[in-house]
Amino acid sequence: VTTVCLPDDRWRQLLVELPVGVTAVTWDGTGAAPDGLRDVEFLVPPYGSGAFDATQLAGMPKLQVIQLLSAGAEPWLSVRPPGVTLCNARGVHGASTAELAVAGMSSVLRELPAMYAAQREGRWAPRDTDALVEKRVLVLGAGDIGSRIATAVVAFGAQATTVARTARDGVHSMTELPALLPEHDVVAVAVPHTDETHHLVDAAFLAALPDGALVVNVARGAIVDTAALLAELTAGRLHAFLDVTDPEPLPPDHPLWDAPNLLLTPHVGGGTREWQRRGHQLVRDQLVRHVRGDALQNVVAR
Amino acid sequence: VTTVCLPDDRWRQLLVELPVGVTAVTWDGTGAAPDGLRDVEFLVPPYGSGAFDATQLAGMPKLQVIQLLSAGAEPWLSVRPPGVTLCNARGVHGASTAELAVAGMSSVLRELPAMYAAQREGRWAPRDTDALVEKRVLVLGAGDIGSRIATAVVAFGAQATTVARTARDGVHSMTELPALLPEHDVVAVAVPHTDETHHLVDAAFLAALPDGALVVNVARGAIVDTAALLAELTAGRLHAFLDVTDPEPLPPDHPLWDAPNLLLTPHVGGGTREWQRRGHQLVRDQLVRHVRGDALQNVVAR
Repeated sequence: VTTVCLPDDRWRQLLVELPVGVTAVTWDGTGAAPDGLRDVEFLVPPYGSGAFDATQLAGMPKLQVIQLLSAGAEPWLSVRPPGVTLCNARGVHGASTAELAVAGMSSVLRELPAMYAAQREGRWAPRDTDALVEKRVLVLGAGDIGSRIATAVVAFGAQATTVARTARDGVHSMTELPALLPEHDVVAVAVPHTDETHHLVDAAFLAALPDGALVVNVARGAIVDTAALLAELTAGRLHAFLDVTDPEPLPPDHPLWDAPNLLLTPHVGGGTREWQRRGHQLVRDQLVRHVRGDALQNVVAR
Repeated sequence: VTTVCLPDDRWRQLLVELPVGVTAVTWDGTGAAPDGLRDVEFLVPPYGSGAFDATQLAGMPKLQVIQLLSAGAEPWLSVRPPGVTLCNARGVHGASTAELAVAGMSSVLRELPAMYAAQREGRWAPRDTDALVEKRVLVLGAGDIGSRIATAVVAFGAQATTVARTARDGVHSMTELPALLPEHDVVAVAVPHTDETHHLVDAAFLAALPDGALVVNVARGAIVDTAALLAELTAGRLHAFLDVTDPEPLPPDHPLWDAPNLLLTPHVGGGTREWQRRGHQLVRDQLVRHVRGDALQNVVAR
């Protein structure tokens, strides 16, 4: 019998499609640990939570797999017990996160919030605005999200340049950023948050962008140095669309709320009504692989 | 000597790159006719104007080509003198119009106006919303705009079905609409306004869509029966994003302003700061073809 720990009872429905021999406990990491936790081989923590702490994980001595429901896995890398495989949810949120990144770009460039405000006032006030056409868009990250962003902006007449940790065909290396940044009008951040990408978008990165450039972050807030971005927004030199912030949630008195030249959404890139069904499918497929002894997908660390 | 009629003096700059033997007059169709109008072979009317009337065109007895700056050519079809070639500006506005169509879709599905309002109030209020992922999008029109819309929504995880006047590989015929409409969550209108497409989106069309479907129009207002759409919006059964309306501009007291479940922009699909440069390039290329006797592009009627 394989024991899986699921976030809550709604997730039990996925078990009806599982092979026999799988049993479930539910725990979201808060409150008392459930009976049966010591038998858990396969842990699915709730979406949007931080990592469990070492004491909680020590309560699962048989743990073999941690299957996350997010694309980001960073908080788990340091607490993962030796030999436990860590998998992320690549592909579950990618399309929606890319959609929000491009919708945010277009909202800024096409001045959509002002146009929707004019609608509420009953004012027909057309004007020429900026747009993605002929923009040079630098996409940081060549994964699921980044490649979808690149495809869409090219469909809208922009040029896309992709940058990732290691160069490969059609993908530049992060080491080329100093030469690439001055040549781009839009930068879209779609890389994981790691030690290497923490504050990657700092004062020097931002200073290298041309006047009027647009910074988009749909990855993790701490990839951007918030103070450095705030200075550029306040100076009126750069624009930004942020779906993620540092800190998060953004406290009511944080200066980002009143920053000019900024559009902000509350970390909803992957937060669509569709994702839970897709998350169920991923967990079910991974559990089947685990029970059968097949190779897991989306392995971040093992 | 070939005489061209340009909308205004700003357009004269394109003549510096033309072959010798081209001379220009400028007229936007208002006020007195300029000297030299009787010599005009090649007419470029201003973007966003209606068609010149028959009397104005009779003042150009040598007219051979009308080169529009818009994708839509409908108002000119009935006034075009016999034997005059009518060309549109396909490709000049297509990418930007497709961008606005998809930005409008995402704005509705992702509830972006409400999120931007929360930002202004300093409220961090994440919630799961709808999204393009796994949506079935019906694109009316297989031209430049429609194909770009299809590419982008597929990048965001949707399925795209394309419909055009005549069926071909990967494109359904308009005659299949009754069967297709109930199977789609989003309809994007990107066809020319012709006698055939006038009020194509009428009460029966809308009634065939499933509850909660989203109607997007970035083409011409009169393709949609405004009263029929208003009824569906007011009933709360359908949502819409309109960049074009009928009438246009929308009068201050028009009921569309207060319709629920509607986002509206003031016909700015192609209205970007970039388009004039692209328009210059198109006109220059077409003038060179005309002077050399080469075949013109973007011919709508001859």
